[in-house]
Amino acid sequence: IITETAITNKSKNVLILLADDGGFELGAYGNKICQTPNIDALARQSVLFDNAFTSVSSCSPSRAALLTGQPSHQNGMYGLHHGVHHFNSFENVTSLPNLLREHGIFTGIIGKKHVGPSSVYKFDYEQTEENNHINQVGRNITHIKMLSKEFLHRANEMNKPFLLYVAFHDPHRCSHSEIEYGAFCERWGSGEIGAGLIPDWKPWYYQWDEVALPYHVQDTEAARRDIAAQYTTMSRLDQGVALVLKELEASGHKEDTLVLYSSDNGIPFPSGRTNLYDSGLREPLLISSPEPSARRNEVSHAMVSSLDVFPTVLDWFGIPAEEPSSNDIWSADAPKSLLRILEKEPAGHDDEAAFASQTHHEITMYYPMRAVRTRSHKLIHNLNFAMPFPIDQDLYASATFQDILNRTRARQPLPWYKTLKRHYYRPQWELYDVRADPAELRNLHGKPKLTALEATLRERLRAWQRRTGDPWLCAPDAVLVRTPASPDDVCSALDNGLAAYLH
Amino acid sequence: IITETAITNKSKNVLILLADDGGFELGAYGNKICQTPNIDALARQSVLFDNAFTSVSSCSPSRAALLTGQPSHQNGMYGLHHGVHHFNSFENVTSLPNLLREHGIFTGIIGKKHVGPSSVYKFDYEQTEENNHINQVGRNITHIKMLSKEFLHRANEMNKPFLLYVAFHDPHRCSHSEIEYGAFCERWGSGEIGAGLIPDWKPWYYQWDEVALPYHVQDTEAARRDIAAQYTTMSRLDQGVALVLKELEASGHKEDTLVLYSSDNGIPFPSGRTNLYDSGLREPLLISSPEPSARRNEVSHAMVSSLDVFPTVLDWFGIPAEEPSSNDIWSADAPKSLLRILEKEPAGHDDEAAFASQTHHEITMYYPMRAVRTRSHKLIHNLNFAMPFPIDQDLYASATFQDILNRTRARQPLPWYKTLKRHYYRPQWELYDVRADPAELRNLHGKPKLTALEATLRERLRAWQRRTGDPWLCAPDAVLVRTPASPDDVCSALDNGLAAYLH
Ligand SMILES: [Ca+2]
Ligand SMILES: [Ca+2]
Ligand SMILES: [Mg+2]
Ligand SMILES: [Mg+2]
Repeated sequence: IITETAITNKSKNVLILLADDGGFELGAYGNKICQTPNIDALARQSVLFDNAFTSVSSCSPSRAALLTGQPSHQNGMYGLHHGVHHFNSFENVTSLPNLLREHGIFTGIIGKKHVGPSSVYKFDYEQTEENNHINQVGRNITHIKMLSKEFLHRANEMNKPFLLYVAFHDPHRCSHSEIEYGAFCERWGSGEIGAGLIPDWKPWYYQWDEVALPYHVQDTEAARRDIAAQYTTMSRLDQGVALVLKELEASGHKEDTLVLYSSDNGIPFPSGRTNLYDSGLREPLLISSPEPSARRNEVSHAMVSSLDVFPTVLDWFGIPAEEPSSNDIWSADAPKSLLRILEKEPAGHDDEAAFASQTHHEITMYYPMRAVRTRSHKLIHNLNFAMPFPIDQDLYASATFQDILNRTRARQPLPWYKTLKRHYYRPQWELYDVRADPAELRNLHGKPKLTALEATLRERLRAWQRRTGDPWLCAPDAVLVRTPASPDDVCSALDNGLAAYLH
Repeated sequence: IITETAITNKSKNVLILLADDGGFELGAYGNKICQTPNIDALARQSVLFDNAFTSVSSCSPSRAALLTGQPSHQNGMYGLHHGVHHFNSFENVTSLPNLLREHGIFTGIIGKKHVGPSSVYKFDYEQTEENNHINQVGRNITHIKMLSKEFLHRANEMNKPFLLYVAFHDPHRCSHSEIEYGAFCERWGSGEIGAGLIPDWKPWYYQWDEVALPYHVQDTEAARRDIAAQYTTMSRLDQGVALVLKELEASGHKEDTLVLYSSDNGIPFPSGRTNLYDSGLREPLLISSPEPSARRNEVSHAMVSSLDVFPTVLDWFGIPAEEPSSNDIWSADAPKSLLRILEKEPAGHDDEAAFASQTHHEITMYYPMRAVRTRSHKLIHNLNFAMPFPIDQDLYASATFQDILNRTRARQPLPWYKTLKRHYYRPQWELYDVRADPAELRNLHGKPKLTALEATLRERLRAWQRRTGDPWLCAPDAVLVRTPASPDDVCSALDNGLAAYLH
């Protein structure tokens, strides 16, 4: 359905700034050590969401969810896209760039793409790891600045509204691929001998003993040094954000562009990326609207998801969603436009929820999880629970995780919030009171007092899985049977004895 | 490397006849009940292999292995291709049709394709489920006959050598999708009211109490009725083979065409398809060479794999393999041309082996297994062993599997060779003496007398996984670490406690 909407709104644009494995190492989110003056300045022009969650804590699946408004199990990006992992969304999935182009909007990506197939995620302007070295388009902020300028120049030449998606590779780890530049590539382009120079970047350095340690990282020198390196890389991201925003202003579009800043998944530390604990699921989200009526320098407590970006962008451009959303933005457990929140804080409902769906990360890391997160509780369903939680190569090679392994092996003190054994072995169901127990350490699954609550969350999660066409709807103890006779999918018992594990 | 070979050998052609989920319901393989006079006649013109194994007991992965000479973990087809499963081979994989076309050979597929992406598996002539109803190109033998005629006519018009790959959909089950035509679509096209008529098919019918029950199927009326239906469907396949061979003869190519008959995976019964027991892994294989010196109506005991089809076809066309194979066809545990076996039975070596690699079938069925099968033993590594073995939707819905479920639930007698519990729960390692224990019921893993043998098989399996680039090389208790510093991949321990299972 191609409408004329875009043409009548041609002064409206969108800029999405995405960090890679970025977390709350941001002054705007209360980190007093890591200096991010530019993102903080953006926050002062934005609504800052303090209950924003990614749909999946893994790179390609999260980016696919962001660009389609569909959870990974619905769009087909069940795991990483590159190399032997080789996941791709289904050919018939609708993505933001493809849909916007149909509406006459000029679309561009600069940085890390990490999704496919190309036909589903086709931007008019692409400067990505597919035609560049990832560091050049994802970490070289001088180059990113010039590419942004080029994109904006073309948009102006064509006099077209635009979507520009700048997907930084910072603050992703580097240790797995290019350890010579430091754990987070913090030396790459720093001007050190042999490391090259990014002219626009002034690195900030930190002492390992001063960092603000997240609760889910062990308090050891090895881990703290890892965090300090991550902070240095945040300075490159932060200054990159400033450069892109300056180009936006120079192009004349500061006053007609909606700007979003977020990250794809949890930080690459234990219980972060690849986990559905809040340490892996919670993301920074800033949305700055140029509308005169828009809230600025305010916090929204609304429960929002990365799945909401898709309908928000459509709403901004005035493009009707294929499935019209309800008047009550919270009613359907479905993606929703966030634009109204930028005008007025909605009344907080206790039953607001965010949903998450994770299956693979690397192809060998099969650990499907489905989760529902309300303001008060989280229910996680671990489908492959009898096997240990898998560890990705990038985290495995990190100094932080090696430190946990070494200390556990040597039976040395490990000042961590859980044990390695607990990290590996998880029960099929996890239920947490996230207000009383934000670290998600006391599993309340099966507690008699919470029977009704747990049953409600389970039904709600299941209804969401059903509505989003989750192939894992019946896993792990039943098989999904779809027959011409039965209109709905039915879960039929496998009698595989897993019931014995249920309590 | 394009050579002139094909041009100087333009009278050489290949016809591959592939059954879908077909087993040993063949007179030529000693089944006295199921009547297959046409395949038996082909066997009398062929070398019949009695130690042929598929590389993987799942439809798409097996077809990808056949067409590339690479195990599923190497070509990327880790599971089923269609629908939500969505597996595809890597874009840089070389397939038979693409390679042969480069050499001037006309390539065609009629029937079930079930692999992708299209660019990797591109035939010049394609009549498949992608542009037809699967039954029309896979079960309607009159239509298959006409398509074969058309393909051969075009090949003759162009005066080109050809590869024709006829991938029947028989004797695949039908119960999951079109139960109205019977458990194996045995009524489809039979002339019964409402079932349509395939003019060239004369169905054969069987009594349930007369079928030859495979050792891995329970001896009950329900299971026997399933087998009887499968037999009827075999009559369609058998007559389809005759029709295609008649078209080959009519086209003038009986005397210059190498003909292969095989199947993609084990029969869709318990311990068959999706299993690496011999009941899932062993396949019929007939190869009929028109060379005057070729053996006919003889049995070869050589250990061969579906991975050998690729180099055999290249050898037949005189196309050099990219990696030249050793002079000793058994030395490298690598795919090998079978042409020499068609001339003379090789001396049987005790250490001949076939290898298997299975990961997914349906996307939700993650149960990676790696196996090595020698003449005397089989070692299976189950990587996700702590979870129950998954059951595919097609088998689940079958009368045979429902009968097992119902009898187990009701604690009724179940005259089966194992229990449902044993079928679901498998140890990490399984070692069988396949001569003394062909049903693979006595697991010899860890037996002191076999320590050296088991260690040898494990090393051999591991070396094969390494050489074929298996991403699961280190699973499930270590992580594969690849660094610029280390030339080889290294398996680094996860310390995830799985060692406790290792014994
Ligand atoms: Ca990421
Ligand atoms: Ca099959
Ligand atoms: Mg990543
Ligand atoms: Mg199949």
